[in-house]
Amino acid sequence: MDHIGRLQRLQQALHRHRLDCLLVTHLPNIRYLCGFTGSASALLLTRTRSVFFTDGRYTAQARAEVQGARIVIARKAPLVAASEWLTANGKNLGSKGPWRVGIEGEHLTVAGRSRLAGILPSKFRLCEAPALVEQARMVKDADEVERIRAAVVLGASLFDQALRTIRPGVSEAEVAAEMEYAARRGGAEGMSFPTIIAPQKRSALPHGRASETAIPSEGFVVCDFGVILAGYCSDMTRTVYVGRPTGEAHRLYQAVREAQQAAVEAVMPEVSVAEVDRAARKLLQKQGLGKYFTHSTGHGVGLEIHEAPRVAAGQVEVLQPGMVITIEPGVYIPGKWGVRIEDMVVVTERGCEVLTPTSKELIAV
Amino acid sequence: MDHIGRLQRLQQALHRHRLDCLLVTHLPNIRYLCGFTGSASALLLTRTRSVFFTDGRYTAQARAEVQGARIVIARKAPLVAASEWLTANGKNLGSKGPWRVGIEGEHLTVAGRSRLAGILPSKFRLCEAPALVEQARMVKDADEVERIRAAVVLGASLFDQALRTIRPGVSEAEVAAEMEYAARRGGAEGMSFPTIIAPQKRSALPHGRASETAIPSEGFVVCDFGVILAGYCSDMTRTVYVGRPTGEAHRLYQAVREAQQAAVEAVMPEVSVAEVDRAARKLLQKQGLGKYFTHSTGHGVGLEIHEAPRVAAGQVEVLQPGMVITIEPGVYIPGKWGVRIEDMVVVTERGCEVLTPTSKELIAV
Repeated sequence: MDHIGRLQRLQQALHRHRLDCLLVTHLPNIRYLCGFTGSASALLLTRTRSVFFTDGRYTAQARAEVQGARIVIARKAPLVAASEWLTANGKNLGSKGPWRVGIEGEHLTVAGRSRLAGILPSKFRLCEAPALVEQARMVKDADEVERIRAAVVLGASLFDQALRTIRPGVSEAEVAAEMEYAARRGGAEGMSFPTIIAPQKRSALPHGRASETAIPSEGFVVCDFGVILAGYCSDMTRTVYVGRPTGEAHRLYQAVREAQQAAVEAVMPEVSVAEVDRAARKLLQKQGLGKYFTHSTGHGVGLEIHEAPRVAAGQVEVLQPGMVITIEPGVYIPGKWGVRIEDMVVVTERGCEVLTPTSKELIAV
Repeated sequence: MDHIGRLQRLQQALHRHRLDCLLVTHLPNIRYLCGFTGSASALLLTRTRSVFFTDGRYTAQARAEVQGARIVIARKAPLVAASEWLTANGKNLGSKGPWRVGIEGEHLTVAGRSRLAGILPSKFRLCEAPALVEQARMVKDADEVERIRAAVVLGASLFDQALRTIRPGVSEAEVAAEMEYAARRGGAEGMSFPTIIAPQKRSALPHGRASETAIPSEGFVVCDFGVILAGYCSDMTRTVYVGRPTGEAHRLYQAVREAQQAAVEAVMPEVSVAEVDRAARKLLQKQGLGKYFTHSTGHGVGLEIHEAPRVAAGQVEVLQPGMVITIEPGVYIPGKWGVRIEDMVVVTERGCEVLTPTSKELIAV
């Protein structure tokens, strides 16, 4: 991974945002920038230096993983260690001060900010920085796309396990157990979110995670699941039918499938995420199903299962080659049933490549 | 669960802390107070009312789960909905204002606080509240202890699976896979943290989560794992030996075991957590192993895997009946090996009850 390039590009951006330094505390951002995968750290970027802070539990791991930053093993919490380092090194920040210290407002807690403010002398000014690392992370490089591709392929293989397990009377949790076991045996570090196996009426709940409830003898089952492999997440949804699908079930499924396809076809560079959302929504509205599509069309995926951009109405982000997003329209008829179909796609120079290799035909089990 | 009593006790505490209301945003705290298990919500307590905010995805779930609070289904983010409600209802807060709005400083982000401050009129003052909900959560009631007991028993059963699987040449991840599969089939919602299977040199890393590395033909393997069952976490560690333990291995294991036992025996009401930590540390220091015990002795466990109190030097918390904590001293000889033994205990009227039912004899596999 190009950690050194990422750090350099971010350092170059500091000047543009009138920041003398940036204190990175969000763990996925730290991992992205310097490679550290542990759970206690802070990363301080000045315009010329990168300094990484962790504690004694992670000495060996930091030495093995961190690239492009000086490593400080502290006896104190990483955030405190970083502020003390900054206090001692302010004079090297290249101006006379006051110095503007960027913090990650969407991640740093109010108490964390208070601790920082209590340590730093008044010549340091804390400012909420724009989401610079998240913006960089939106566009994946070739190494990242390779890892995501591998996660998607492993994730997709779990659907076979689901098809073998979903039967009337089997509990949702049992299906999830078999899928998660297959994921682990396939090398996954874990699941990227709690597996959703939501049959019949529960398929109308967009977030019905697998419970002890038995799968009934007929109806849709929404299966939404993903793995983490080498740090990167996968995310997919397929909806299967237990029993023989009625004409109504076929029509509903077909409507969602067409909406999903329309959104996939809308994905290309220079198109806004709102337009992609609109492509799916328009088709469902035509069928009178618009009001049952109660969430947004998708989201970015990478080191985190939900990351920028949001593929939703009102969002202004414009797609660029290398962005990896989900396309997952769904229709939920309360008290009755629901259908969702989700693929991951990577934006290419001319459109997009669908990463999820799994058929979207309606499967009856 | 006694959600209504919990809400009432917290409301009574507001006056004592000179707060007109408390905005609860930390999800485990919301679950503790009103029972909601979903992932988007806010809970606002005034001295006389409790109002719960979520969005349309969770309408059915909120109606089924939330107790003791009025439910508001909002089109906006729960935090925004809560601030708008407060703006409209300030006049009912029982004083003329300015009104002091408590926020959870250890959980609310800087950006979340800015959003709140941008919505609330100037008559509302945001203040970092003490960790009132976390303090209440420290002492478990009978219902909670029952759930924790069930989680501990299920968690402990995974150790049998580990013993059946740990063999030279088998990967750490394979052992974890078998354990996690057994957990799911036993009804667990998931694992309470990433399973640690750390053999030989890696056993000297306190946080060596299961990797693709094969278990070597001889040495210690630290197994640290837990489940989530009905919302409550379990946590235990056993260290086994692959091959025939040397005299040195026996002595090291015995030292950790005695330190663990000493700390368990120190647990009783009115004793400070620092004393419990000292009990374990003293025995290891006597053996010249003090400097290899590089972490604290334990932590509270409940709805979260790590919660108050911390069982560590310098902490002033005093044990009370109903507190549930881990006792987990460990010794890590860098580059060589490590041993950790961990039980969960519940503080009783006269001492403590060890919840973890598993033998602490050194097992050779």
